[in-house]
Amino acid sequence: MANKEPQKILLAHGGGGRLTANLIEKTILPKLANEVLNRLTDGAVLRVNGASLCFTTDSYVVQPLFFNGGDIGKLAVCGTINDLSAMGARPIALSLALIIEEGFPMEILDRVLDSVGRTSQEAGVPVVTGDTKVVESEAADGLFINTAGIGVLLPNVNLSFERIQPGDKIIINGTIGDHGMTILSRRKGIRFDSPLKSDCSALADLTSRILEAVPGVKFMRDPTRGGVAAILNEIAAGAGCDVVIEETALPIDPTVRAAAEMLGLDVLEIANEGKMLMIVASEDAKEVVRICRDHTLGAQAAVIGTVATPQEEGGGIVELLTKIGGRRIVQMPYGRELPRIC
Amino acid sequence: MANKEPQKILLAHGGGGRLTANLIEKTILPKLANEVLNRLTDGAVLRVNGASLCFTTDSYVVQPLFFNGGDIGKLAVCGTINDLSAMGARPIALSLALIIEEGFPMEILDRVLDSVGRTSQEAGVPVVTGDTKVVESEAADGLFINTAGIGVLLPNVNLSFERIQPGDKIIINGTIGDHGMTILSRRKGIRFDSPLKSDCSALADLTSRILEAVPGVKFMRDPTRGGVAAILNEIAAGAGCDVVIEETALPIDPTVRAAAEMLGLDVLEIANEGKMLMIVASEDAKEVVRICRDHTLGAQAAVIGTVATPQEEGGGIVELLTKIGGRRIVQMPYGRELPRIC
Repeated sequence: MANKEPQKILLAHGGGGRLTANLIEKTILPKLANEVLNRLTDGAVLRVNGASLCFTTDSYVVQPLFFNGGDIGKLAVCGTINDLSAMGARPIALSLALIIEEGFPMEILDRVLDSVGRTSQEAGVPVVTGDTKVVESEAADGLFINTAGIGVLLPNVNLSFERIQPGDKIIINGTIGDHGMTILSRRKGIRFDSPLKSDCSALADLTSRILEAVPGVKFMRDPTRGGVAAILNEIAAGAGCDVVIEETALPIDPTVRAAAEMLGLDVLEIANEGKMLMIVASEDAKEVVRICRDHTLGAQAAVIGTVATPQEEGGGIVELLTKIGGRRIVQMPYGRELPRIC
Repeated sequence: MANKEPQKILLAHGGGGRLTANLIEKTILPKLANEVLNRLTDGAVLRVNGASLCFTTDSYVVQPLFFNGGDIGKLAVCGTINDLSAMGARPIALSLALIIEEGFPMEILDRVLDSVGRTSQEAGVPVVTGDTKVVESEAADGLFINTAGIGVLLPNVNLSFERIQPGDKIIINGTIGDHGMTILSRRKGIRFDSPLKSDCSALADLTSRILEAVPGVKFMRDPTRGGVAAILNEIAAGAGCDVVIEETALPIDPTVRAAAEMLGLDVLEIANEGKMLMIVASEDAKEVVRICRDHTLGAQAAVIGTVATPQEEGGGIVELLTKIGGRRIVQMPYGRELPRIC
């Protein structure tokens, strides 16, 4: 039997993995095709009056709405700021659109909005426009939030797959999997002595410090849905190179590691909400790690791997060098395991 | 007993009427307060590199997803284009964020995206960035769409409440209530010999023609949720004037009138999705009506009323001169009657 495309939307279509990529490439892009959208970065770059504007959008459907380290409101502000940061932009404004289920407690809405306001103020990125829709009881799951964001491209920044080449270093600003494991453990009712905490944070200050100081930064992407595994696969495919990461170099919180083992999950596939993967010229890697470690959001920054010469034409292979010296392929996640993580 | 604020979100909080205004002013704005947001127009104006950018967002939760004259995809593109148009901007780019229920038929998603693509192409406003989330079966009602939009303010345009004064004319580009009555009749299973059809359309071309030709246009707003009644009340309150409209001057399709009577609704409170209310200096009214009538989206344009000297300090009263010469107050709708209209 032929390998048919699903006729209905599956949870995995939203998981940030292979099915999400299929849906976007086969169903969505052909209908909307235009030069800007086809670039498929985290957002679009528009030229207006000589300025390069970045524009991005994300909806947030996380369950539960509140978790250790954040809530849907903080997530909605940080997530869109981080998408703009990954493009090399300084975020200047956010929109906020709420879809609320009838009967939703006003007191909880209040807490979420407090969090939106506080996070946006701390990050210095105001919410300038909004919309509110209410749907009947049971037509939505409590509260969904969409934020769109506008940023201005930082001067002299040029982030693109094309600049990536073998020998470049792969850097992350800290431990991986914290956000996703916090949400999943909460949902499964698992508790640990040292509690899991989402890394949800706005990275614009950190990324702009790095971009202003280091011209050798070639690419950035925040590893949210699908985790580090999904983004490294996108990078390898986009750059036409292979990628090799080292298991011993990956910063992973011990509780996150224990939780992932308990639930049978690969930490590389788990979502982050305060992390940036950076591809940096080899000679600049040390400086980027130093800037990260000087920042509150980068104390555990590390070089986790290297871009490699492709083994096959076109590249695209992501390999993990294991602790015991083996090699395993890190695949693009399918996406099913982790719905409603953000 | 004191008149207490509701402790839970009601459908009326999303209806575009009094409760929506309360929610925005008392719960949302205080948390997010900043100079741009507080202006509470249909969107925000941001200065970037000497250009004035307009930025707006809207979520679309309409049920049914398809209706005579449009669908949720067309609506999502037109609605955001119209918000930018009402600000006096030329729309330049849209974002598209989908929240899809698990199990949603791929074929229907395909049709909606076809419609998004076609509408955006016809209007010349590309979708440049997007996001897709999938939630579990029954966690959403099929499909919700958010679009945000960026526009560039047209040169020499100055639309604001402050310019409105007694004697100004109120113009609309055609019949009222078509969109809302089409949705509601479809939901109630009512059929008519001459079918109802939504007015869903993108107004940017019409509004830019008007704004380029007529400096005396002082204010524009698209009367969507809450209909003409809600917008006229906002205008009267914002301008500190009264407003008088004439029943005999209101363009209303006979089938829309019949449907509204049958369902016990006031056409003034019914949503439009292809209409613009314009406040115009008296001497320019004729020219604006002429430009509308020369356009496919303005054949039934009419002057429907006049801005009047306030009867009480601060103004804010909207009156309807009835066919038989009476006067009745047109109140801000409460909002309960019409959920999920857009």
